[in-house]
Amino acid sequence: MKPETRDLLKKVSTATLCTALFKRGLRNQMIQDVRPLNPDAPTMVGEAFTLRYMPAREDRNGIAVFQNRDHPQRKAVEECPPGAVMVIDSRKDARAASAGGILVARLMQRGVAGVVTDGGFRDSPDIAQYAMPAYHVRPSAPTNLTLHEAIEINGPIGCGDAPVFPGDVVVGDGDGVVVIPAHLADEIAAEATEMTVFEDFVQEKVMEGRTILGLYPPTEEKSRTDFAEWRKAKGR
Amino acid sequence: MKPETRDLLKKVSTATLCTALFKRGLRNQMIQDVRPLNPDAPTMVGEAFTLRYMPAREDRNGIAVFQNRDHPQRKAVEECPPGAVMVIDSRKDARAASAGGILVARLMQRGVAGVVTDGGFRDSPDIAQYAMPAYHVRPSAPTNLTLHEAIEINGPIGCGDAPVFPGDVVVGDGDGVVVIPAHLADEIAAEATEMTVFEDFVQEKVMEGRTILGLYPPTEEKSRTDFAEWRKAKGR
Amino acid sequence: MKPETRDLLKKVSTATLCTALFKRGLRNQMIQDVRPLNPDAPTMVGEAFTLRYMPAREDRNGIAVFQNRDHPQRKAVEECPPGAVMVIDSRKDARAASAGGILVARLMQRGVAGVVTDGGFRDSPDIAQYAMPAYHVRPSAPTNLTLHEAIEINGPIGCGDAPVFPGDVVVGDGDGVVVIPAHLADEIAAEATEMTVFEDFVQEKVMEGRTILGLYPPTEEKSRTDFAEWRKAKGR
Amino acid sequence: MKPETRDLLKKVSTATLCTALFKRGLRNQMIQDVRPLNPDAPTMVGEAFTLRYMPAREDRNGIAVFQNRDHPQRKAVEECPPGAVMVIDSRKDARAASAGGILVARLMQRGVAGVVTDGGFRDSPDIAQYAMPAYHVRPSAPTNLTLHEAIEINGPIGCGDAPVFPGDVVVGDGDGVVVIPAHLADEIAAEATEMTVFEDFVQEKVMEGRTILGLYPPTEEKSRTDFAEWRKAKGR
Amino acid sequence: MKPETRDLLKKVSTATLCTALFKRGLRNQMIQDVRPLNPDAPTMVGEAFTLRYMPAREDRNGIAVFQNRDHPQRKAVEECPPGAVMVIDSRKDARAASAGGILVARLMQRGVAGVVTDGGFRDSPDIAQYAMPAYHVRPSAPTNLTLHEAIEINGPIGCGDAPVFPGDVVVGDGDGVVVIPAHLADEIAAEATEMTVFEDFVQEKVMEGRTILGLYPPTEEKSRTDFAEWRKAKGR
Amino acid sequence: MKPETRDLLKKVSTATLCTALFKRGLRNQMIQDVRPLNPDAPTMVGEAFTLRYMPAREDRNGIAVFQNRDHPQRKAVEECPPGAVMVIDSRKDARAASAGGILVARLMQRGVAGVVTDGGFRDSPDIAQYAMPAYHVRPSAPTNLTLHEAIEINGPIGCGDAPVFPGDVVVGDGDGVVVIPAHLADEIAAEATEMTVFEDFVQEKVMEGRTILGLYPPTEEKSRTDFAEWRKAKGR
Repeated sequence: MKPETRDLLKKVSTATLCTALFKRGLRNQMIQDVRPLNPDAPTMVGEAFTLRYMPAREDRNGIAVFQNRDHPQRKAVEECPPGAVMVIDSRKDARAASAGGILVARLMQRGVAGVVTDGGFRDSPDIAQYAMPAYHVRPSAPTNLTLHEAIEINGPIGCGDAPVFPGDVVVGDGDGVVVIPAHLADEIAAEATEMTVFEDFVQEKVMEGRTILGLYPPTEEKSRTDFAEWRKAKGR
Repeated sequence: MKPETRDLLKKVSTATLCTALFKRGLRNQMIQDVRPLNPDAPTMVGEAFTLRYMPAREDRNGIAVFQNRDHPQRKAVEECPPGAVMVIDSRKDARAASAGGILVARLMQRGVAGVVTDGGFRDSPDIAQYAMPAYHVRPSAPTNLTLHEAIEINGPIGCGDAPVFPGDVVVGDGDGVVVIPAHLADEIAAEATEMTVFEDFVQEKVMEGRTILGLYPPTEEKSRTDFAEWRKAKGR
Repeated sequence: MKPETRDLLKKVSTATLCTALFKRGLRNQMIQDVRPLNPDAPTMVGEAFTLRYMPAREDRNGIAVFQNRDHPQRKAVEECPPGAVMVIDSRKDARAASAGGILVARLMQRGVAGVVTDGGFRDSPDIAQYAMPAYHVRPSAPTNLTLHEAIEINGPIGCGDAPVFPGDVVVGDGDGVVVIPAHLADEIAAEATEMTVFEDFVQEKVMEGRTILGLYPPTEEKSRTDFAEWRKAKGR
Repeated sequence: MKPETRDLLKKVSTATLCTALFKRGLRNQMIQDVRPLNPDAPTMVGEAFTLRYMPAREDRNGIAVFQNRDHPQRKAVEECPPGAVMVIDSRKDARAASAGGILVARLMQRGVAGVVTDGGFRDSPDIAQYAMPAYHVRPSAPTNLTLHEAIEINGPIGCGDAPVFPGDVVVGDGDGVVVIPAHLADEIAAEATEMTVFEDFVQEKVMEGRTILGLYPPTEEKSRTDFAEWRKAKGR
Repeated sequence: MKPETRDLLKKVSTATLCTALFKRGLRNQMIQDVRPLNPDAPTMVGEAFTLRYMPAREDRNGIAVFQNRDHPQRKAVEECPPGAVMVIDSRKDARAASAGGILVARLMQRGVAGVVTDGGFRDSPDIAQYAMPAYHVRPSAPTNLTLHEAIEINGPIGCGDAPVFPGDVVVGDGDGVVVIPAHLADEIAAEATEMTVFEDFVQEKVMEGRTILGLYPPTEEKSRTDFAEWRKAKGR
Repeated sequence: MKPETRDLLKKVSTATLCTALFKRGLRNQMIQDVRPLNPDAPTMVGEAFTLRYMPAREDRNGIAVFQNRDHPQRKAVEECPPGAVMVIDSRKDARAASAGGILVARLMQRGVAGVVTDGGFRDSPDIAQYAMPAYHVRPSAPTNLTLHEAIEINGPIGCGDAPVFPGDVVVGDGDGVVVIPAHLADEIAAEATEMTVFEDFVQEKVMEGRTILGLYPPTEEKSRTDFAEWRKAKGR
């Protein structure tokens, strides 16, 4: 994505982005059922860097596996680029953790933009204090070895029933996390920015007591001229 | 309901109301698995005004449908009476939104008493700031067109496995939302008010260290006389 | 457990405990999908005292049953020892309450260390204000009589898919609740305390910008010597 | 639909129909998770005649309600036109029956083409012997009054997450049941018939040992000429 | 139950029994979501003899536990009385077996009337050949030790969300399994027998082409007189 | 695996294999919740050849993608080795098909030993007639493009919550499908064969009326000598 796209995306909502994607026939880009551990963090934006878990086979997932510096979970944490969002495919299984406070702290210190799993994080009270946004289904204390084996770094995955390809642009806010196909990120960001200006206008008018009929969408001429004036006045 | 019923219901809990309904053989009046977006809002009370969604068929639910002023979703938002609670049957499917910040704001500005869906709202961080109570299962950013077509206004529906008829009295607090059949609202409100006085007495005594045996329920004579005295002293 | 075990367990996390249990081949000791009503409460520690619910048959569960002083739910509340944690098997069914504010208050007043259900509590906003930790799946207003009959006090149960025997040591924090077999409590507490010292060291180093490779686990000699020095410096 | 459409649809599969619908952007027309009680019955075809259930409120659903000749469930059974398929919205809840052997027998005797519920039928062993196709999720013995109140006849509904409008064309085979929007039925039937001819050709060639590459779809010229010859030879 | 009650219950359906229970306010007596492995077996009737499983803790459930002659699973199989139905509470978890072909064969050889679990049986193809009726949710090959520890024999349990007390009368047919409270068995059997006579009459008339209005229920005088004649003619 | 291992595995049950795996600490090797479409087919045995689906993004999954000879789904069907079992990771989502009758026929014609998906097959009535065993969760008519994009051939996957690595040995019977780690296949096959001899002996004795106590497991000396004699007599 273009550098300015990142800035634009930080100022729009996942709801608006979903509508822009819907207009292009993309209906399943929301990572279902994840929520922010730190709801006061700013909007999360970054290119997807993925990690895929498969079900753990007991003989391959003893506590000693982390002695291996090349263990994919640890490697992924050290390789995820600054500015990216790590997206973890945990097969929607939160019965064991996808990662814990130390690994998420390392991601944050490395300048990663955020982390998402369709499973759960352990040490969730700690992570909830971090500045870096993190999203999961629910807290989960058991070590990932209990149910998850990290098997692939940065391949195409599913997360919360959404398709995620490395390099897709991932945006998260209080509603959850949406995945924008890489080639659409710039145009979607621009369109969502425009939509947001109009939605802000509508929200203001509605709070002043105006009906939504003819205003949202602006089927009445007056709505369009009012918006043009408002926009000029606001300098947006 | 009688005007005073509304006031009474604002001071009792959904838990107490459920017990009063249980005594009358009504066991399924709780809208299951919804929670307040704005838990600090006061108790929600109002007559049900319903909206029913059916699964969306793609050729009927393009983005242009909202150009139609008579689209049932928008119409319902403008027609829901002040003081009523809009209850939305989203078939317990929160994968797409039931409504968003602008529509909920319009309901609030029109004096509606609250809104409930057994799906999810988008723009949930905004709605969480509103004064009007709103209840859902979880946040959901995708536009309702993705999965839901508004098909009927103010008919009988299911919401969170509870039956809801237009005019039923809907009450919501931190535990969730309960539906009182219209014809029972006055008597249930009166009975729950009485029950609440007793529960407040019991709670106070328990916090002072008293056993619940003989007190809750008041099978001992002393419990009943203590309560009578307490009640007189408190002027309730 | 030894008296000092209780103190040690109050200072370690359920995540660390799960790892210590995992090392011993115990993979299912986390009570799945429960969360604290009062997340600011301190870590919960106590021996399990159990209550088992079975599905309610209507003719055995009218509102009058609580007139009976020996009703198992009420009896359990009065018999749960101070310092214990009441663990309730609600068959993972939160459609009706496991208990409400008054009973939980009574437990608190009696010195009980906490309460857990794999169902839901009613009066949840009240319970969220209590000093005693309480864990459930979600709020649930309907009276327990609607779906649950208390049938057995202090027998072996399942709770959130975990096995719970009376006397097992139950620990809860922001990630949820873990069950430590009674005979392992002392050694697990000691081991988890040691692990926590090391994790605190790692967390500090990671926040200073250090890589996790070679540090976590400490496969490099330098990590081990740094830790030894840090530990001495910190007096831990 | 045209009279010949019904005949055509009896000879194509729901799988082929789903593909034809998919080509037109309709992805959710399959009634999910229903199966035939009588798998040896022929393909079911007919226009949808719908019945909607809402959650039952106990005071409205005593055993005496069927004394009323106008009870919607009984009325629907007598009004469903011959040749139609009755489609029942049971909110995907099979814990109580949608209907039983006697009502389904009456539908059959009246010349109805089939019956579908996203709940369950009681007397399922009897219905499994009927000549008229019936589809449900699983058997369910409890009377519908336990959980379902019939509330609307022949309105738009959801069934198994699919949208169903009265008059839509419903087709069922061993894979389940698909809903074709009324205005598309004729063209979909024609297209699916053509597709079926080709699929039969492919199936025959595959059973003879031919690769699917270049054949399915027929990207090789040879596949297309072979098909043309086969078709001529078969007279299809 | 009286000896003749057993014979009567063998000739009525679980659907009819559920209606008779519903009339008495008992709405949750159906064991949800179990099906017969051997659908051609006759109706199963017997008093409940129960076995309760709790989640398995690994250190208590090694393969050697069956060396113990008093292991509750094996003990239960040898103690279940002839003529009884063994009902197993597997917490609706079919990921590991509740029992296998050998134990079920032993029950059959001992004269037990049937076996039900809300989990799954292993060796299901073998069991499907047995003369004794068996009901489960789905086949499940893993040994019960994987997830289930047998913990209590013949206590009150839940099975498929239904309450089951030892001695309750359990009836199973193609629709599933229903639990009749012991004290009601005789009267329910008598009533269901009467209902079945009438239903057989209705079924016959419906198959002859008669409307259900006025017939089912028999609100028209003619229906009642026709039934009286039919009954006399049939000698029932 | 050794050639004779394949033959041995054809004569043992998945139940017995699960127990042998359990003894080695492998508790999650059963592919949960799949059943045979053709239950009369013989036991399925073969090395796993895998196919992984991810969620389909609409712009990548139009009907034209199959024009590409290298589409992974089609390629996998042509590349799966004779004697192997194709195991498909469909993320436990049966709302769209994993494959249909033509592709499964091609696998069969190519000498593949079987096919398993944790989703569903379309054209299920056809597949049910094939000689090659096929396992799925339930029938599913919608084209795979609706929800699934084939993304990887023969990598490690999850299927029905079990870990599957290419080359693992997959065995299916009427209870479902189990995955044996490649390096254990020979020893597990030998052990399961021995276990089966003993189980056959036990089954025979139980059918003759013998108690399981002391026999299963053979804690009594007599059981062991009886078995030795039986074995000699049977020549096994």
